[in-house]
Amino acid sequence: MQTTTETSFNLKAYLSERRALVDAELERSITVTYPEILYESMRYSLLAGGKRLRPILCLASCELCGGTLEMAMPTACALEMCHTFSLIHDDLPAMDNDDYRRGRLTNHKVYGENIAILAGDALLAYAFEFLIGQTKKVPAHHLLQVVTKLSHTMSAAGLVGGQVADLQSEGLENIDIKTLDYIHTHKTGALLETSVLSGALLTGASDAVLQRLSVYAHHIGLAFQIVDDLLDITGTQEELGKTPGKDQKVQKVTYPSLWGIEESKRKSQELVHLAKAELASFGNRAQPLMAIADYIVARTQ
Amino acid sequence: MQTTTETSFNLKAYLSERRALVDAELERSITVTYPEILYESMRYSLLAGGKRLRPILCLASCELCGGTLEMAMPTACALEMCHTFSLIHDDLPAMDNDDYRRGRLTNHKVYGENIAILAGDALLAYAFEFLIGQTKKVPAHHLLQVVTKLSHTMSAAGLVGGQVADLQSEGLENIDIKTLDYIHTHKTGALLETSVLSGALLTGASDAVLQRLSVYAHHIGLAFQIVDDLLDITGTQEELGKTPGKDQKVQKVTYPSLWGIEESKRKSQELVHLAKAELASFGNRAQPLMAIADYIVARTQ
Repeated sequence: MQTTTETSFNLKAYLSERRALVDAELERSITVTYPEILYESMRYSLLAGGKRLRPILCLASCELCGGTLEMAMPTACALEMCHTFSLIHDDLPAMDNDDYRRGRLTNHKVYGENIAILAGDALLAYAFEFLIGQTKKVPAHHLLQVVTKLSHTMSAAGLVGGQVADLQSEGLENIDIKTLDYIHTHKTGALLETSVLSGALLTGASDAVLQRLSVYAHHIGLAFQIVDDLLDITGTQEELGKTPGKDQKVQKVTYPSLWGIEESKRKSQELVHLAKAELASFGNRAQPLMAIADYIVARTQ
Repeated sequence: MQTTTETSFNLKAYLSERRALVDAELERSITVTYPEILYESMRYSLLAGGKRLRPILCLASCELCGGTLEMAMPTACALEMCHTFSLIHDDLPAMDNDDYRRGRLTNHKVYGENIAILAGDALLAYAFEFLIGQTKKVPAHHLLQVVTKLSHTMSAAGLVGGQVADLQSEGLENIDIKTLDYIHTHKTGALLETSVLSGALLTGASDAVLQRLSVYAHHIGLAFQIVDDLLDITGTQEELGKTPGKDQKVQKVTYPSLWGIEESKRKSQELVHLAKAELASFGNRAQPLMAIADYIVARTQ
């Protein structure tokens, strides 16, 4: 029975429909006004057509918990704003110094370093304003839980700490699995987990539900990072929208470099299996999140 | 009577006592953990001993509205974190490229550009987490109003927009008063206004009270900027803790360059007079905010 419903779920259509909803909302979220270059720079990176994985996870998790798309959409957009902020800053010359992202020139290559830094800053702050200002029909204390979770994730204890650890480990050969796990869980995993949990927090989900979703998120977060590392080795510039082979070039320690390619693939598949098992008790309602877990290891970008 | 109470108020003692309270709370707000360099960098700039004007305004405004120091302290600290974030990013080589701030080397001079950018990012995000997580005895919907106001101020519609307009106007000779006002009200004025209003919002102050405080904040905000411009001309490195003469060096259009020194002094005094008049109906409770207005034109740093 489970197998039948799983195969009947059209993930491709689901993702493309959700992505279109999120894109439309993001398009509306920022209007260009004085000083125009700042708003254009924010829109340039925010509307560059990513996978919208974080917003989609948030929407799916909210629906799984009995909430509506409408109540989760502002949070979904805020998650993408936060993600875009981190990409703009990570790409800066002082950081990873990347020229391409999502198939086009990075923000600082187009607008200059000063505007890129400020566009990132503005997206981070605006995420909180947008989330609170646009969310309807959610009690204030649930909204505060979401803002707390998101701000924690975006600070030193989350994503920024992960980026610092990543920068510090560059060029070092002796990175152990503990450090690699720290980098991954903070730099990538934290925001993915918050994407899943925030959708549930908006509905006032129970601790038991949050716990299951948290385990799911940890597993898909790690799988996502392993696949990201694998794609850097096996992907093309066209597929990735960014320069491949970057990790090897800077001698970065990654999961494939520690475990090898085959073992990394096996691990990512196992993690997806565990993630899905964690949601089994939710039945059909968990179909989208289960399908997204499959997508994470099957993706080529 | 008003004169007697005004002279009996010891502003110097008041500011130094409040500054000590804020400093102690900021000291406790960030503990160094892995990756240490990030937390050290955040603490380096946050604990560099500024005037703490924004936190003090927030505390004073909360007390004026019948609130307590305790309920406003987390917001006060968050305001200083936001202010420090903006200073770290403004000082970057890609921005104003400053070597000194608050009498010591700027953050990127000590920790490098990448860590300085990330320490700023982390302080901005942490401000929201700290504000929500640490505030006690304030209803959730009042807290949401404060977070909304603060995030709006820190985004493109506030401080970041002001910084972009400032960067764009550099080196241009034909900056008009409208552009200069835009820069000031966004880059400096917005966070000062939010400092004053947030203290009141925590107490659920009425629109009439918020309106008076907003007018007060606008006047002292403009006076503050005029005095800042004047100090850049007349102050010493020792007094300012940063390099003076910077505006003239980059041919920046400022209030003194448009109006002349004497007229600028007169204007700043007039603004302080208007700011204080706006608070007259609050009686003795407004003493601290009135004294702070006086301090803003009398200060030498």
